[in-house]
Amino acid sequence: MNTKIITPSPNAHQYPLLIKSLLLSGQRYEPNREIVYSDVLRYDYKTLNQRICKLANVLTEAGVKAGDTVAVMDWDSHRYLEAYFAVPMIGAVLHHVNVRLSIDQIIYTMHHAEDNYVLVHDDFLVLAEQFGEKIPSVRGYVQLSDNPAPAQTSLSTLGEYEDLLANASDQYDFPDFDENSIATTFYTTGTTGNPKGVYFSHRQLVLHTLNTAATAGCYEGQPMLRSDDVYMPMTPMFHVHAWGMPYVATMMGIKQVYPGRYEPNKLVKLFAKEKVTFSHGVPTVLQMILDCEAAKTTDLSGWKMLTGGSAPTLGMAKHMAERGILFFTAYGMSETCPIVTATYLHSDELNLPMSEQMPYRIKAGVPAGLVDLRIVDPDGNYVPHDGEAMGEVVVRAPWLTQGYYKEPEKGDELWANGWLHTGDVASISVDGTLEIKDRIKDVIKTGGEWISSLELENLISQNEAVNQVAVVGVPDARWGERPFAMIVAAEGHSIDAAGIKQHLEQYVESGQIAKWAIPERISIVTEIPKTSVGKVNKKLIRDQVDD
Amino acid sequence: MNTKIITPSPNAHQYPLLIKSLLLSGQRYEPNREIVYSDVLRYDYKTLNQRICKLANVLTEAGVKAGDTVAVMDWDSHRYLEAYFAVPMIGAVLHHVNVRLSIDQIIYTMHHAEDNYVLVHDDFLVLAEQFGEKIPSVRGYVQLSDNPAPAQTSLSTLGEYEDLLANASDQYDFPDFDENSIATTFYTTGTTGNPKGVYFSHRQLVLHTLNTAATAGCYEGQPMLRSDDVYMPMTPMFHVHAWGMPYVATMMGIKQVYPGRYEPNKLVKLFAKEKVTFSHGVPTVLQMILDCEAAKTTDLSGWKMLTGGSAPTLGMAKHMAERGILFFTAYGMSETCPIVTATYLHSDELNLPMSEQMPYRIKAGVPAGLVDLRIVDPDGNYVPHDGEAMGEVVVRAPWLTQGYYKEPEKGDELWANGWLHTGDVASISVDGTLEIKDRIKDVIKTGGEWISSLELENLISQNEAVNQVAVVGVPDARWGERPFAMIVAAEGHSIDAAGIKQHLEQYVESGQIAKWAIPERISIVTEIPKTSVGKVNKKLIRDQVDD
Repeated sequence: MNTKIITPSPNAHQYPLLIKSLLLSGQRYEPNREIVYSDVLRYDYKTLNQRICKLANVLTEAGVKAGDTVAVMDWDSHRYLEAYFAVPMIGAVLHHVNVRLSIDQIIYTMHHAEDNYVLVHDDFLVLAEQFGEKIPSVRGYVQLSDNPAPAQTSLSTLGEYEDLLANASDQYDFPDFDENSIATTFYTTGTTGNPKGVYFSHRQLVLHTLNTAATAGCYEGQPMLRSDDVYMPMTPMFHVHAWGMPYVATMMGIKQVYPGRYEPNKLVKLFAKEKVTFSHGVPTVLQMILDCEAAKTTDLSGWKMLTGGSAPTLGMAKHMAERGILFFTAYGMSETCPIVTATYLHSDELNLPMSEQMPYRIKAGVPAGLVDLRIVDPDGNYVPHDGEAMGEVVVRAPWLTQGYYKEPEKGDELWANGWLHTGDVASISVDGTLEIKDRIKDVIKTGGEWISSLELENLISQNEAVNQVAVVGVPDARWGERPFAMIVAAEGHSIDAAGIKQHLEQYVESGQIAKWAIPERISIVTEIPKTSVGKVNKKLIRDQVDD
Repeated sequence: MNTKIITPSPNAHQYPLLIKSLLLSGQRYEPNREIVYSDVLRYDYKTLNQRICKLANVLTEAGVKAGDTVAVMDWDSHRYLEAYFAVPMIGAVLHHVNVRLSIDQIIYTMHHAEDNYVLVHDDFLVLAEQFGEKIPSVRGYVQLSDNPAPAQTSLSTLGEYEDLLANASDQYDFPDFDENSIATTFYTTGTTGNPKGVYFSHRQLVLHTLNTAATAGCYEGQPMLRSDDVYMPMTPMFHVHAWGMPYVATMMGIKQVYPGRYEPNKLVKLFAKEKVTFSHGVPTVLQMILDCEAAKTTDLSGWKMLTGGSAPTLGMAKHMAERGILFFTAYGMSETCPIVTATYLHSDELNLPMSEQMPYRIKAGVPAGLVDLRIVDPDGNYVPHDGEAMGEVVVRAPWLTQGYYKEPEKGDELWANGWLHTGDVASISVDGTLEIKDRIKDVIKTGGEWISSLELENLISQNEAVNQVAVVGVPDARWGERPFAMIVAAEGHSIDAAGIKQHLEQYVESGQIAKWAIPERISIVTEIPKTSVGKVNKKLIRDQVDD
């Protein structure tokens, strides 16, 4: 198209969208606001900015150059926050290593990402010592220690993080460069094959941050994060940019609390001590918070909790509401940076009592600004928004991975027909709310009909004797597949398969499910298998049932 | 710099930042929210989207092509809002014609902008009929009428707006194109020479919108605009994108009220009837609101009013506070899209009684996110942020005009040394708050010292007998320049020059100003000359004094 484009004045500053710009405003608004690292350290935004400069100097002096890749292996910490900024700001790529993968997978991802430098916490030294020569691209390590006496290691490191920062200048003139430069990379583990690398540019992260800030702050139906909030993540910072929130919080100048290694009682104590108001985590982590000892004696009311990664059950959401927790759901995935949708309650829904808001709050919500989201049938035709019809969720937005690193065929498949294919099946209601029904591969196909595993989980979760539940499809000679439910009983309750079947009968009677949706096979267990990021591991459950 | 850039999958959608994306979310959040046009018309967001498609079809069928320029000559209306979207979304440029300029200046700007089509309200037909052959680029007119019987005109028009829309399809497949395509243009009138054309791209307007939404919504110190607000502009929509707010409001899905031609009593009645919560206007317009008949019998409390364009006086701000108005100031100019800074109150300032917050609320505030703002001396050296030192405000941000249209030398001068030079003199306090002291050209240079005309205005405004005041420098044989004050007395008060001098003595005694800052020449008038956008016209005052 022959639109009008005017050549700028040669003097005009071309403003690239770079992560360094996100740092400008936080320290201007409230320079004394704090960054807190568990019970170890606290400092203000001025210091944060100085320490980012120091880290940039340490890395530059160690030989890190633009285009290099710097890996981080740490719990959620102030250091990790500093790396979120300093590494991309010198033009390098930050590799968020998923430290919960197996050592073989970790080595695979670091080798595949061609990591050049590694920031490694004491707790992962033993692991890193086993890398040997298996990641030949690595040129150096920096040790991250919480103790005055860092752990001994056979790794040859450049030194300990705090020691290195202490001797570095707190000034750094961060350069401008192409906003399409890659800022971060990390790996997503599918059910088959090797982990796949996704990657995000400076431009994508700045746009994701601006849009998330606008979405989180402006909507009275979902005021998730505003300047007076206190933020503490309960997802690992390696997990999809901690959902982008450290960038948002830093841009807003919000008090931030990084808890180190997750332990539910510690998180609840930090919540109370630091007056945390906003956290996010996958449903299983939030369930652990609800269930822990410290939660029993702590007033959790007013805590805004955003969940995502997998769908929360209505049962859990109701427990949240009983504790006074303000509950939100967002939808996204590693490929999407991640925010695609978030809870939005329309005025009439907001006027309901909190317990009655929960069926709306556990839905994926409404697409955020700039997000173009559709549901399509297998031929790519748009499916109507009537709350009934189901289709695969496909997305366009300015912050989606543009492929998989060094796996072009998989990237082309992800982006078939110019839409990012999420692999999720959903309906969209007349009022525009997205409801994820299932992963395409988790839908249970039985006797020519489809059963949503998530819907069954939801219904089972509403039995007060149920603490956790996972439903998968398992092969069946006659019907193709049949549902199988794995259940953890709630504390002080006992439950058996017959009781669950009886519980489900009421939903058959009310017409919510068909008679044949009730699983024959129900297993009561003490623990449900989880993935490295704490989601229910349905692949493993299916494998176990097949055995 | 050799950063890492990865070629996207050929299937991946490249998401350009286009104005059409801003339309996605409003109708998803609250499709039933209203757009109101005075007492003439109201419709919902679904209809807004349909009408934008209809307008795009009307324009396309009339022959408007990508790269063409479409001028609008209208009061603030739903039609103007529709043009904000439809014109750029088909790849054309929207020329915001300043209808308050002289006819010669209007013709100059339309000729210079090479307008191809003109949307013209009944009230401006007589004016447009005088264009004759003076703007040869114009290929067609569309008449905008509020009446069932449109005004008679000798112009050959394509038809009346509503008639044309009625027959157009409400579907339009808006194309993707280069995000650097120019979306809007308008003209800024300096004190000398012809008006200068500034221009803004789709990318710039999307970024300005996202950033303004985040700034307006997230900060508890300045929650200016959130989803449940009701928005009514009190600046003309041709005036710097109505400060960008129609785009922000539409993205958020906010109820919007467009009042048509400004008349203070009508604005106050619309405020009450439509439950308006957020408006913006230049200080003189806000003063007119405060002073009008309807305001005397209307409870104005809770009305959030943003001012800018020129500095508000403390006297006016205190009147606002007395009426319960929540008062904000923003800083920007035609060249800056416009938002550069906005009121930000730090926690301790927010805890003060409202009247004591006013000295902070009338300052320009803190730079918004992404904005890099400095003050520099005439050699371009950075001036310290101590609240005392003054320098010219220079800016970098992603939404600044990249030059002046077809006047490259003036654009190069605007952007000298890679910073946009605002022509404003300011100080920045230790806590980062910008305080505009004067326009460089309005600073009064007397006896080798500088006097800020704004500071004198502020001090004079605090006399209860003063309604409006303007201070300019006038030539003086002995001192170079001397201050001259023009004053309008408050209703029911009388005032004379001696009284004003006596009023100013207290500030000499308290050390706020020097003895020689008191003007010898003070003129009591019934009206102060204003520019076409309602700001005090200091050039005209100086000219009148010189006569």
